[in-house]
Amino acid sequence: MFARLFKPKTTVRAHCDLPCGVYDPAQARIEAESVKAICEKYQQNEDPVFRTRALIIKEERANLVKHHLWVLWTDYFKAPHFEKYPQLHQLFNEATKLAGVAGAKGSVDPAVAEELLAKIDEIAKIFWETKQAA
Amino acid sequence: MFARLFKPKTTVRAHCDLPCGVYDPAQARIEAESVKAICEKYQQNEDPVFRTRALIIKEERANLVKHHLWVLWTDYFKAPHFEKYPQLHQLFNEATKLAGVAGAKGSVDPAVAEELLAKIDEIAKIFWETKQAA
Amino acid sequence: MFARLFKPKTTVRAHCDLPCGVYDPAQARIEAESVKAICEKYQQNEDPVFRTRALIIKEERANLVKHHLWVLWTDYFKAPHFEKYPQLHQLFNEATKLAGVAGAKGSVDPAVAEELLAKIDEIAKIFWETKQAA
Amino acid sequence: MFARLFKPKTTVRAHCDLPCGVYDPAQARIEAESVKAICEKYQQNEDPVFRTRALIIKEERANLVKHHLWVLWTDYFKAPHFEKYPQLHQLFNEATKLAGVAGAKGSVDPAVAEELLAKIDEIAKIFWETKQAA
Amino acid sequence: MFARLFKPKTTVRAHCDLPCGVYDPAQARIEAESVKAICEKYQQNEDPVFRTRALIIKEERANLVKHHLWVLWTDYFKAPHFEKYPQLHQLFNEATKLAGVAGAKGSVDPAVAEELLAKIDEIAKIFWETKQAA
Amino acid sequence: MFARLFKPKTTVRAHCDLPCGVYDPAQARIEAESVKAICEKYQQNEDPVFRTRALIIKEERANLVKHHLWVLWTDYFKAPHFEKYPQLHQLFNEATKLAGVAGAKGSVDPAVAEELLAKIDEIAKIFWETKQAA
Repeated sequence: MFARLFKPKTTVRAHCDLPCGVYDPAQARIEAESVKAICEKYQQNEDPVFRTRALIIKEERANLVKHHLWVLWTDYFKAPHFEKYPQLHQLFNEATKLAGVAGAKGSVDPAVAEELLAKIDEIAKIFWETKQAA
Repeated sequence: MFARLFKPKTTVRAHCDLPCGVYDPAQARIEAESVKAICEKYQQNEDPVFRTRALIIKEERANLVKHHLWVLWTDYFKAPHFEKYPQLHQLFNEATKLAGVAGAKGSVDPAVAEELLAKIDEIAKIFWETKQAA
Repeated sequence: MFARLFKPKTTVRAHCDLPCGVYDPAQARIEAESVKAICEKYQQNEDPVFRTRALIIKEERANLVKHHLWVLWTDYFKAPHFEKYPQLHQLFNEATKLAGVAGAKGSVDPAVAEELLAKIDEIAKIFWETKQAA
Repeated sequence: MFARLFKPKTTVRAHCDLPCGVYDPAQARIEAESVKAICEKYQQNEDPVFRTRALIIKEERANLVKHHLWVLWTDYFKAPHFEKYPQLHQLFNEATKLAGVAGAKGSVDPAVAEELLAKIDEIAKIFWETKQAA
Repeated sequence: MFARLFKPKTTVRAHCDLPCGVYDPAQARIEAESVKAICEKYQQNEDPVFRTRALIIKEERANLVKHHLWVLWTDYFKAPHFEKYPQLHQLFNEATKLAGVAGAKGSVDPAVAEELLAKIDEIAKIFWETKQAA
Repeated sequence: MFARLFKPKTTVRAHCDLPCGVYDPAQARIEAESVKAICEKYQQNEDPVFRTRALIIKEERANLVKHHLWVLWTDYFKAPHFEKYPQLHQLFNEATKLAGVAGAKGSVDPAVAEELLAKIDEIAKIFWETKQAA
């Protein structure tokens, strides 16, 4: 359905898009930095109340990372982008999976959060390339 | 990262997955049926208060369709599924885009909601195949 | 759909009801199955991070069970249903209370979740009877 | 607090209930007053942007009325209350239905909001009687 | 910008304000009482499931305290109030900070919740003075 | 990070703060840019469905602007900052008020959104100064 719309360029539809067309991978990144910071603080503090709160807040922030990435994937990126960057689907799927990884022991490991940040940076790099090409 | 984990089968990780492992495309479908019903009622009722409320509720339901589909895509489907069903990424991207289509005049057109339901049914078919194969 | 039930008076309003008229007890059931699955996994895994996350997610899912049941009780079921099924009010009250039971030691007991599922099934049975009668 | 009501059986659980045991029908009432005030302002202002915003905010506040009432009905009121006040179930069902009434032309009619406030006051009267009896 | 608008009195703008103009510090107070009650119950119950749930629910309630206070500070109080009560900004900032205090050992200390309640009462006192002056 | 600011007393607590210590005024700014973009698109499109959706989404984004600013004001900025920047309280109060301005005719005026962006930039400037001083 979108294939037909995006033939030559997306300009025609662009001016009446809603949501507003303002996207920025920084939203996912800031939340992912939170996740990482919480993991680090969790490791440094053995107070059980602190640790439970850390997990509550980390869960919430990790869900926000997923949400911001999903929105980018569905609302910002369009068919021509996926053609040009065939790895994009998998990249987003892996990044959102990483944001959700928390069932195993590694879940409060800052290294997992860093892996997540690296994936988001890969996405951001592509994002800004597509913005410049637009 | 998940590639390595899911080599032969996913049993090892499966028993400690969180969220709980209960997924059902019915969640997205019920909300999409709501979207369709609202579109139909919108067409039949010209009262401006009714119509504004219809759009408010449709927006909310459409967001739930997207959310339930995103969760399936990220949390349920794993690398081996994407290998077996290479169309899955695009299917989810198109379905969530359809759920979000509402900026154009067609946005209260029940036909768009039916297209969305058809995409969800395609996803559900694959979902149940993977469940049987598990 | 409610035309027959609301003989003379409310017929006019019936065709322009909002929300959209799409209800399905499956929504509450899927979340309740999640609650049960989380209880089972909680019992099988003593990792404290896993257990805290399990309780966070169970809380959220249990709230969704309550929400979906409340919506059915208020938005779907109407006066004639409550006359025909005088046990309905208590059934919903007990089911939502069960969804909220979590203060005692039994709260991560899959048996409580099964009791909840049984209540939801009783509600679903009545729901589908009223749908057929409509 | 419930000690007297739950003579032999439930005493044990009573002191470890969660949520916290703090309930107040004022929460539903404040939101219902909002709904009424919005209806009045809607009637006095024909600017379309104002009216759409009024409906958006009214929808949200009406949902909060429903939510606060549902919580009281499920979490605060217990079996002995329903025995003593057999009208309670219907009262809550009618009040939450009124909070949701908005599909018809009357939906921005302050009179509907006043009916809702009257129902909430009936509930509040019973609530405070049960508190004194506790 | 608001300085100019609120010259002699706010009557002109008042009738077209949205949200609806219904505010009540009771909303923040009820949630803060919840926080306090949860702290007390936490102290009395060493069951780990109970304690984790207590922290989950306390987090949620504390966020609601903050939210209700922020809304009062931004939406209810206007420039002339801040002139008349120069301590108001700091009072709200301290109250919302207190609502968020939970990282240290004292976070499940009912005394912190009581401090919070005292701040809310100070705000409520000013609130009702401004209502009478209106 | 706050080590230097909270000389003797609060140092102990500083390293175990939760939330995580990751703050960025960019979060409020991105949402405010959305608000502005929606205002512009609203002006350019007279389709009533488009316009209602624009107002629904703008309402949501404006609430996010307020939320992100409130979090900065309560959770990031501390007593010494307010001493050094005595205008901060009023700046935040005005910025959140601007984010909420939407009851008047000007509410879909991109100029109001620009005023909001300017206030956020003032806050951001102070924010980054305090970060460098930390």
